[in-house]
Amino acid sequence: MEIEIATIGGYEEVGRQMTAVRAGDDIVIFDMGLNLSKVLIHDNLRTEGMHSLDLIDMGAIPDDRVMSDLEGDVRAIVPTHGHLDHIGAISKLAHRYDAPIVATPFTLELVKGELEDEQKFGSSNELIQMDAGETMQIGEHGCELEFVNVTHSIIQAINPVLHTPEGAIVYGLDKRIDHTPVIGEPIDLKRFREIGREGNGVLCYIEDCTNANKKGRTPSENVARESLRDALYSMEDYNGGIVATTFSSHIARVKSIIEFAREIGRKPILLGRSMETYSGTAKQIGVEFPSDVEMVGYRRSIDQTLERIMNDGKGNFLPVVTGHQGEPRALLTRMARGETPYDLDAGDKVVFSARVIPEPTNEGQRYQAEKLLGMQGARVYSDIHVSGHLRQEGHYTMLDALQPQHIIPAHQDLSGFSGYVDLASNQGYTLGRDLHPTTNGNIIQLN
Amino acid sequence: MEIEIATIGGYEEVGRQMTAVRAGDDIVIFDMGLNLSKVLIHDNLRTEGMHSLDLIDMGAIPDDRVMSDLEGDVRAIVPTHGHLDHIGAISKLAHRYDAPIVATPFTLELVKGELEDEQKFGSSNELIQMDAGETMQIGEHGCELEFVNVTHSIIQAINPVLHTPEGAIVYGLDKRIDHTPVIGEPIDLKRFREIGREGNGVLCYIEDCTNANKKGRTPSENVARESLRDALYSMEDYNGGIVATTFSSHIARVKSIIEFAREIGRKPILLGRSMETYSGTAKQIGVEFPSDVEMVGYRRSIDQTLERIMNDGKGNFLPVVTGHQGEPRALLTRMARGETPYDLDAGDKVVFSARVIPEPTNEGQRYQAEKLLGMQGARVYSDIHVSGHLRQEGHYTMLDALQPQHIIPAHQDLSGFSGYVDLASNQGYTLGRDLHPTTNGNIIQLN
Amino acid sequence: MEIEIATIGGYEEVGRQMTAVRAGDDIVIFDMGLNLSKVLIHDNLRTEGMHSLDLIDMGAIPDDRVMSDLEGDVRAIVPTHGHLDHIGAISKLAHRYDAPIVATPFTLELVKGELEDEQKFGSSNELIQMDAGETMQIGEHGCELEFVNVTHSIIQAINPVLHTPEGAIVYGLDKRIDHTPVIGEPIDLKRFREIGREGNGVLCYIEDCTNANKKGRTPSENVARESLRDALYSMEDYNGGIVATTFSSHIARVKSIIEFAREIGRKPILLGRSMETYSGTAKQIGVEFPSDVEMVGYRRSIDQTLERIMNDGKGNFLPVVTGHQGEPRALLTRMARGETPYDLDAGDKVVFSARVIPEPTNEGQRYQAEKLLGMQGARVYSDIHVSGHLRQEGHYTMLDALQPQHIIPAHQDLSGFSGYVDLASNQGYTLGRDLHPTTNGNIIQLN
Amino acid sequence: MEIEIATIGGYEEVGRQMTAVRAGDDIVIFDMGLNLSKVLIHDNLRTEGMHSLDLIDMGAIPDDRVMSDLEGDVRAIVPTHGHLDHIGAISKLAHRYDAPIVATPFTLELVKGELEDEQKFGSSNELIQMDAGETMQIGEHGCELEFVNVTHSIIQAINPVLHTPEGAIVYGLDKRIDHTPVIGEPIDLKRFREIGREGNGVLCYIEDCTNANKKGRTPSENVARESLRDALYSMEDYNGGIVATTFSSHIARVKSIIEFAREIGRKPILLGRSMETYSGTAKQIGVEFPSDVEMVGYRRSIDQTLERIMNDGKGNFLPVVTGHQGEPRALLTRMARGETPYDLDAGDKVVFSARVIPEPTNEGQRYQAEKLLGMQGARVYSDIHVSGHLRQEGHYTMLDALQPQHIIPAHQDLSGFSGYVDLASNQGYTLGRDLHPTTNGNIIQLN
Repeated sequence: MEIEIATIGGYEEVGRQMTAVRAGDDIVIFDMGLNLSKVLIHDNLRTEGMHSLDLIDMGAIPDDRVMSDLEGDVRAIVPTHGHLDHIGAISKLAHRYDAPIVATPFTLELVKGELEDEQKFGSSNELIQMDAGETMQIGEHGCELEFVNVTHSIIQAINPVLHTPEGAIVYGLDKRIDHTPVIGEPIDLKRFREIGREGNGVLCYIEDCTNANKKGRTPSENVARESLRDALYSMEDYNGGIVATTFSSHIARVKSIIEFAREIGRKPILLGRSMETYSGTAKQIGVEFPSDVEMVGYRRSIDQTLERIMNDGKGNFLPVVTGHQGEPRALLTRMARGETPYDLDAGDKVVFSARVIPEPTNEGQRYQAEKLLGMQGARVYSDIHVSGHLRQEGHYTMLDALQPQHIIPAHQDLSGFSGYVDLASNQGYTLGRDLHPTTNGNIIQLN
Repeated sequence: MEIEIATIGGYEEVGRQMTAVRAGDDIVIFDMGLNLSKVLIHDNLRTEGMHSLDLIDMGAIPDDRVMSDLEGDVRAIVPTHGHLDHIGAISKLAHRYDAPIVATPFTLELVKGELEDEQKFGSSNELIQMDAGETMQIGEHGCELEFVNVTHSIIQAINPVLHTPEGAIVYGLDKRIDHTPVIGEPIDLKRFREIGREGNGVLCYIEDCTNANKKGRTPSENVARESLRDALYSMEDYNGGIVATTFSSHIARVKSIIEFAREIGRKPILLGRSMETYSGTAKQIGVEFPSDVEMVGYRRSIDQTLERIMNDGKGNFLPVVTGHQGEPRALLTRMARGETPYDLDAGDKVVFSARVIPEPTNEGQRYQAEKLLGMQGARVYSDIHVSGHLRQEGHYTMLDALQPQHIIPAHQDLSGFSGYVDLASNQGYTLGRDLHPTTNGNIIQLN
Repeated sequence: MEIEIATIGGYEEVGRQMTAVRAGDDIVIFDMGLNLSKVLIHDNLRTEGMHSLDLIDMGAIPDDRVMSDLEGDVRAIVPTHGHLDHIGAISKLAHRYDAPIVATPFTLELVKGELEDEQKFGSSNELIQMDAGETMQIGEHGCELEFVNVTHSIIQAINPVLHTPEGAIVYGLDKRIDHTPVIGEPIDLKRFREIGREGNGVLCYIEDCTNANKKGRTPSENVARESLRDALYSMEDYNGGIVATTFSSHIARVKSIIEFAREIGRKPILLGRSMETYSGTAKQIGVEFPSDVEMVGYRRSIDQTLERIMNDGKGNFLPVVTGHQGEPRALLTRMARGETPYDLDAGDKVVFSARVIPEPTNEGQRYQAEKLLGMQGARVYSDIHVSGHLRQEGHYTMLDALQPQHIIPAHQDLSGFSGYVDLASNQGYTLGRDLHPTTNGNIIQLN
Repeated sequence: MEIEIATIGGYEEVGRQMTAVRAGDDIVIFDMGLNLSKVLIHDNLRTEGMHSLDLIDMGAIPDDRVMSDLEGDVRAIVPTHGHLDHIGAISKLAHRYDAPIVATPFTLELVKGELEDEQKFGSSNELIQMDAGETMQIGEHGCELEFVNVTHSIIQAINPVLHTPEGAIVYGLDKRIDHTPVIGEPIDLKRFREIGREGNGVLCYIEDCTNANKKGRTPSENVARESLRDALYSMEDYNGGIVATTFSSHIARVKSIIEFAREIGRKPILLGRSMETYSGTAKQIGVEFPSDVEMVGYRRSIDQTLERIMNDGKGNFLPVVTGHQGEPRALLTRMARGETPYDLDAGDKVVFSARVIPEPTNEGQRYQAEKLLGMQGARVYSDIHVSGHLRQEGHYTMLDALQPQHIIPAHQDLSGFSGYVDLASNQGYTLGRDLHPTTNGNIIQLN
């Protein structure tokens, strides 16, 4: 059986991930993501009403025209977790394929939201829910799709595995090896080790190179949790305002903030549209998330809530808000500009449980947000965070578990692949033979 | 009563700390430290036999000649903790003063060691042990010395307070605010708050500006401990060599490494002369330190021990060694060069529970050490560490607790003071009036 | 005679410079500048109609309320050169003082423009033109003001010297030592040496610390000119679009671009309002500036000109435009967004003869501008520039020439002063005795 | 005719360059270089007596065992210029091949020196001198070797071109596009354009990616010369010591220093073994080099010369010495340590006309050297330098000139290739099809 991998998007950037695997006549697509920075560089661009081809030209969504070179039928579209760089193009591209969208419950709910917001295209793809540990048949020629549980900075992330007669194709994007992930199960390394040893083993491993140039190990979410606990407990005696911000999709982190807020005697309230979307979805699907936390999404309601907080006394609350990158229109930045009813006073504390995405645009915006906060007297705690992506030791562990015949580095550009290529070369792989750094729009034939 | 502060050393650098406080006729000296980098820049310099004046000329020890401008008698020499930049010049300078050396038990033991190693000068200063929370009378005019417990990267650190009729002088060097310090009691913030409010309050606060340019809070040692636990537990299944290195004076960290080593089924052994010195001293004075851990200090014994480890199987041991800065002659660097019986194999792990001291010399040496380790196949985990010094939020907390009339920034040069001066200015202090950045060899009159 | 220096603005930042010198009853004010970044952090703030006190509260202009503590009459307001951080607050503050504004012709013309744009306040200060090398009497007690020619990144910069019976006060801001400045005379080091040795010598020197943390020498404008020549000549064979941008106030640089544009067969056109202002003023006062170069300032005319360029062939022109910092509304950024008639094609060249002002806001905006240019296919040449401020060797030269009794570091915050304090300490000055790092709003008594 | 390129060394690092081109039965080898950092990381390693295989294992010289996979006879070994990373392994490897060494006169003289120093192997390769612009026949099947003049940081650098019936193979390492190179002819861009258009054009271009991640243009040597002139002229009035250091192989730079030294009234003397080697060779082959400059190579003579300088007055001389990277045993470092008769005094000037090679080892050593110089009172001018390697605009120019069918990035690792791959992709090349990033020990078949 012929096996081909089309590396469609996310092989020259972080963002707009999309990969298709053809096994004989059957094709599975992994991820259809957005490159948000290509949208944001244009002023006030609203993508909901835009056509796919324009977004492709802008580099915002994957250029899936290479799909016409793959001979076969798409059997499933598999978003691996709910981040926009993995699901953000589904509303623009999925309708072109007569195939169901298969994902874990949390991811699937987020995909539904994306499809509902879309204004240009209508999608009639079936939505199929599948949990980590489950499998489904793909086509009629002996292929099977399996979801292996992984740990990432969003809940219910999986690595999908396409089992083929020639061996397994493991799509390994977006994970860290976390044995204490705060919410959900630890990464299922045991299953990866089995897959590496059963049947024909692993034919190909597509690996997330985000941190491949960094030595050592990505710490567990539990380490971020302990840092956060240390920071928030140190504010226990403070009577003024405390505000926290983090990635709204990072449910485990939001949960920790909620818990520690309560432990130091404050009522947490989640504020901002994306806070409401992600946490609301988490609550709805019933993960171990505090179900009684207040969430407010719309601007008018947010401002009313902030007014109420001011009236009841800032010292009794801990608003968890959007704006960790200093986005000019996010709630925290509005607070920093004094545009909300929430008054920041000298000594108030703002906790950034996130790191700045290392691009000058973000760094500039974040710098300005912090300057504005400082002009109000607020004081900043930053970088209380751990990455969601493997560093080098995680890559070694995965290679040891899977022992793949071929490797395709992903989720970076060539410069980002370089650390991984060195690492894999140390383990006996050879560039061009079984180690395939590639570009967007390429097709790699494996046998 | 006249109060003067002589800022003798450590006001233009990190290193060679020394400060004298005169209250009327009575003088107390805080710290007599070494600037190690001024020694190391010279090849093979051995300080044990060198004269004070030569070391002063090199900038290696404080230039205490300004002491002759202070009219009074030295009543006590008070090393605040056992780091060399605070005790390393005692053997060169203390003998000039007819005064006892007063310190906590661990610090005092280390001072004894320094005095025993000295070859040029003999000291007859009385050694007086005093615990945190205790006080002693200074002179006959109403002054009293108090030790307040603080948390730092070495055990039994204190901030000494000289109570005078004019108010308290708080010598605040080398601490972080840690409520979960792994060994010993949390910082005694309650006592600082009392001192700030009792009698005439605090006349002068001498503050440690090491991290004064960094926003946020220095995390607790417990955060480093959780990072370390996460890293070492992730190696639980590894059968090959694991080596750890950290500051040998950092007893809490060494203790954590020992504990986690045992929990993952390995026998920890402390190797290297300074490892033996500090941990041996900790064991001897009976802190909560694993008393049954093996320590080996001399090179020949170290090599025999490493041979034994190789024979018994590297997988059963976790050597804790010196060399975290890549020092060319330290044990880890010798291991990296293949100069010891311990063979590093591909995949072996080396854990740096320390950060590189940010100076190009250290960075270059550490880089070389890591390169050499890499040439042996070893893989490096680094920066599993937290600082021992207050960041800005800690400074705000201390100002709030002590409410000092005057502040003297210390433990940095002027560039390092700048963040602190900004911070104190925000709190209402004014440069030149009650906020006194200064230089080595200066005397500040407070009333 | 009592001599006092009021360090009003620019002693905690780069920007809003203002210093007053009182000699007996006579006061001279040096500079009244703007801190532009404090204006730009607010969206769409228009300062023309704003009140001084609001601008003072924002930190945008100097807080001159300390002037009421100086007992005497203001005899002159002396802007030292035409940069906004030195003249930008004149329209807000000068009307409060019954004193003439004294400046070199180019500077004075720019001041006039500032006063004409002002909408809130009317100024009736007399405007007096004085050239480098000239002097004027100040008051009736033996004081005299002298302008010494210096070299900076704008033409007709001077260092004013107030000669008093107690010695000279030299206000040394904003210069480099340039013996080949492209336009105008070399720095008048000979006169500085004389001032250092005649009469009572120099009582006080106020020094520009912008680059005081940088070793070595600031290169001459001639070095930037040679780099520019090298870059532009290398494009001689290119037929497509070439665009250059630089500081519009940097007349010497603009002149070099004009000359090299012509030498490689292109017609230079200056585009943008500030380009027209500065170059137009230069042309008007008759410096050695190409008088026949076309300048276009208003947006509609600019777009017409760009249309003409497109019709006549981009290859025949070299537009010199505003936007070197990536300012969102500047012409170059508009070109990068495709908002002008000038189409950038693949391979077109954009020359930044400027460096990014090292603040994350600018870095982010410049990054975005370059990204947008890259999306059009344009290619960027950057950093073809030299600084206008002394590095350490220049400071040594000035100290050697002037041999001042007292020094006041300026044009930075404390962190920026630190390199200068080290340097002056090496030359025998002592912090607090004759070396006075200070803050805004302070008064230093010299005798 | 089959064409193969063996990418032997320098494709995973900067250093130990070696590439072989097979055209039918005829093979030409370009460069046999050394990776000096792999030698220096070992203490006191002397390579002269070492065996090739040990040096290969250390990664110090190219692993040429892949040559046995190339079916054909080596017809020529072509070192392209005299830097050690291009000629430093000739003495260890050339004797294995029955082929002449063909190089420009200056390069050939340096190769001779290498062969004479070698103690382990004897070489009997014929040495053939060939100038830029000349050609020689290779084998009997229509191949021809041509030298095209290029400009680099050493004189007489060439790019060799192997003309084959299938098209030209251009080995493009180590050049910048310099139209005003101070010594020698400008780069022969005209010839490159002809080669790109004559016959079958260029089959393959092997490109130097050293600066491929840097935008803009590498400035001409003339820009460094003007910076140097500016710096040295600024010292014209100084009567004390001035010392300069630069790459001893950089004959044009050394020449500029000599000339400006004389123009400011000082006698230049070249000191240090490598200074004597390179400049002596330049003088011997008769380039436009000041033939009357004194050169001293041996340590004892150097010390005598420095003694003479001290006796005659430092102010009359300008020693040009080795040690620009802070190498611990170089002359400048010895001077900094006070180990030579040359006394540095406060205010003496040390000019580094070189940049620090950006590796922590060098940065650490250079930092120490500068610290030691500072302890003597000397003041440092650094970075008066331009790179010898193309930046991105040069790469665009070369692609435009040559229009190669295939490209092989070289002289970097994969991370360093990434900027070039992006650039070439912009120009229409495709990874894996006609753009071949590769590793050491690989063979690329072109048809």
